Amino acid sequence: MSRTTPKPMSGFPEFLPAQREVERQVIDTLSRTFELHGFANVETRAVEPMDQLLRKGDTSKEVYVLRRLNEESDEGHAGIGLHFDLTVPFARYVLENAGKLEFPFRRYQIQKVWRGERPQDGRFREFVQADIDVVGQGELPFHHDVEVTRVMLQALGRLADPGSIGLPGFTLQVNNRKLIQGFYQGLGVTDVDEAMRLIDKLDKMPADVIRKLLRDEAGLTDEQADQCLALAAISTDDDSFVGQVRALGVSNDLLDEGLAELAELVRACAGVATDRVRIRAELKIARGLDYYTGTVFETRLDGYENLGSICSGGRYDSLASDGRTTYPGVGISLGVSRVLVPLVNKGLVVADRSVPSVVLVALPDEESRAASDAIADQLRANDVPCEVAASPQKFGKQIRYAERRGIPYVWFTDREGGHQVKDIRSGDQVPADPSTWVPPTNDLKPTIVHTDNQ
Amino acid sequence: MSRTTPKPMSGFPEFLPAQREVERQVIDTLSRTFELHGFANVETRAVEPMDQLLRKGDTSKEVYVLRRLNEESDEGHAGIGLHFDLTVPFARYVLENAGKLEFPFRRYQIQKVWRGERPQDGRFREFVQADIDVVGQGELPFHHDVEVTRVMLQALGRLADPGSIGLPGFTLQVNNRKLIQGFYQGLGVTDVDEAMRLIDKLDKMPADVIRKLLRDEAGLTDEQADQCLALAAISTDDDSFVGQVRALGVSNDLLDEGLAELAELVRACAGVATDRVRIRAELKIARGLDYYTGTVFETRLDGYENLGSICSGGRYDSLASDGRTTYPGVGISLGVSRVLVPLVNKGLVVADRSVPSVVLVALPDEESRAASDAIADQLRANDVPCEVAASPQKFGKQIRYAERRGIPYVWFTDREGGHQVKDIRSGDQVPADPSTWVPPTNDLKPTIVHTDNQ
Repeated sequence: MSRTTPKPMSGFPEFLPAQREVERQVIDTLSRTFELHGFANVETRAVEPMDQLLRKGDTSKEVYVLRRLNEESDEGHAGIGLHFDLTVPFARYVLENAGKLEFPFRRYQIQKVWRGERPQDGRFREFVQADIDVVGQGELPFHHDVEVTRVMLQALGRLADPGSIGLPGFTLQVNNRKLIQGFYQGLGVTDVDEAMRLIDKLDKMPADVIRKLLRDEAGLTDEQADQCLALAAISTDDDSFVGQVRALGVSNDLLDEGLAELAELVRACAGVATDRVRIRAELKIARGLDYYTGTVFETRLDGYENLGSICSGGRYDSLASDGRTTYPGVGISLGVSRVLVPLVNKGLVVADRSVPSVVLVALPDEESRAASDAIADQLRANDVPCEVAASPQKFGKQIRYAERRGIPYVWFTDREGGHQVKDIRSGDQVPADPSTWVPPTNDLKPTIVHTDNQ
Repeated sequence: MSRTTPKPMSGFPEFLPAQREVERQVIDTLSRTFELHGFANVETRAVEPMDQLLRKGDTSKEVYVLRRLNEESDEGHAGIGLHFDLTVPFARYVLENAGKLEFPFRRYQIQKVWRGERPQDGRFREFVQADIDVVGQGELPFHHDVEVTRVMLQALGRLADPGSIGLPGFTLQVNNRKLIQGFYQGLGVTDVDEAMRLIDKLDKMPADVIRKLLRDEAGLTDEQADQCLALAAISTDDDSFVGQVRALGVSNDLLDEGLAELAELVRACAGVATDRVRIRAELKIARGLDYYTGTVFETRLDGYENLGSICSGGRYDSLASDGRTTYPGVGISLGVSRVLVPLVNKGLVVADRSVPSVVLVALPDEESRAASDAIADQLRANDVPCEVAASPQKFGKQIRYAERRGIPYVWFTDREGGHQVKDIRSGDQVPADPSTWVPPTNDLKPTIVHTDNQ
């Protein structure tokens, strides 16, 4: 149907088959980890009513609005757009189905989202996110904050495992809004939200500029601004941040609560962290305008700090509410495309074959196709993915056909009905029985080839 | 963030977790079958340029057009819409990446598509399709028509397996455009396309009405119209249709070619068909306005014939072309949502639990949480999905918590550190070691409970 060579569309990344295999294995690894912890999968529709989409702060400019091509004006359907995250749809899903869900409700959701942003490095208009959340009805104990952190750390640990997909390492940075708010209140700061919003810009602006903004825009004294910057400078990989905060001499009940929660979180996660996936109490993390009320998360990818946070989230005391019941939640969202697209595009991770086939069943001549099909079906009965050669070329050409696709084995049948299987990587060729032969487990699915990023 | 109870959106189906599990197992089963046959997975972006989307006949009314909420007029970006099938995007993907793909290229693609139709029974505005296609560069031998038919028959066979997901049976109906066109040409029909379009309406209108339309709108004589209707009435489950067509006394080279291809297809698929998944040569199938040039497919779901064809496709001699090279293809597309949504909404298929957890690790008191977490982590190390009780309620309440979610086992630890696992379906409770215990394989993932539809 297409008549000319199309060009890629900026901001809408697509993968070749061997690249898509990396994404699939990443999604499988995430799904398996989340399921091991009892998280149920959910998918929500791609669209939400515009009034829901425009509720969450300043993201309105990013929404793609939908219109039917021949829409009649009286259809009352103009008000839908594509979701820009998975939190707004999930909050709606919880309210819509509250009577049919069991709480605490653990769900994971791995779907595409869309944002009409100007495409830049690491920013896409269509991208995959992987979210986990635990939602309670009325209340949700703090141990679920620990739970989602541990689950995401384990998931990231599997992605960064050099024996598996081998992504670069991750640093999960945690903080607690109660800690910041309590500290600011204890200091006597009046516009706590504005001060927090400014501190959140420390990654983008020098401390001197932030200090000036804290004074000029949030009305802080020099001493208050210095204390806020001193708090934001605290960063530890254990609970020693507590002593450092105490040394700043501010006291406040909410601060105490935040310190206790964050210390518990960091201690409870120590056993899950590895040398490739670390956790840090990072007291400058505030998550800007998002409606978090306790724990907050950001995550850096080693060597790709310029991507910003690739895995963020936190605690909402009110993820959703129907006016009578409030649903608190805690969750974290991994930007799957944000992490993968740069690595894949640089060729740092790719599958070692572009097809699922482990075996190419050679075809001596076109008359033998039914016999070759029958051999392939015997292999498939033992869960061995395979394909029959497309045409009866010389065997050397059939072997090169397999090589180009990365298929490791070629199956030959001689005139007497004897079978041989050749590992074309080593050249080893051995007799084999199609009704019982299986390859080594490692060959069953494509292997991810990765440049070790550490 | 949400403040009121939202309502479902007509035409955008969503599933509860135990329903979504059915969809996941269906998609897993399809993916595994396609991969066993060497089909590589691909995902394309959700959007295409409007000029591509409006190319395929009369579907323009169905397209959702996208607009950025605050779009500036000079952005040149108004011309994108959501894809309404997976064939248009795939044809574009093949052209865009032709230099990087190996041909014949086998791909499967399971994604949501969107159509701005008025929602009716079985028609959705957002739905999942599962497509397989084989595409050649320049040429594509007929044996690939046989291949995609066999692969889809096997996939449907697994879905209909009463020991597995247990969907109702399927009848795959096949025909060949060359057969129809050759027959009409041999009859002397001048407007073959129009005659074919009218015959395609036989499911919706009585034969008498079609006969009249063939005369009045396609200019056929009474005798020609009767012959066309006689051809359309032929339906056999083997290659005996060849004799029945010959008996109508029409001769034409293209007809001969079509008869030979269709007979070969039906014979080659006989071994794959079962009592639940049948293949029929159904000579009224024409696939209306679609650009098929040989084999055509439609599929009926037993007991749900009112849904129309739930799995359709065929051969394109030009799936795509860049002006120099033509890419012929043959493919078939299963309407996953079209099949599942009615069955799921009637409660005919559902998973036996709403969570992946096989085990609920009981919690004697809040102080034991770390110990219970450690037991859960031991189970997870052996790939046993589990969760720790949310709160230290009485054990009877914890068992009911598991029951409501369909979790089959509850794990207890006594004060002396002894472990017991209870199958709450049978009540059996036995000592167990958390470092080695695994449930029977059947319990590892949720089982699909289905009303036997046959």
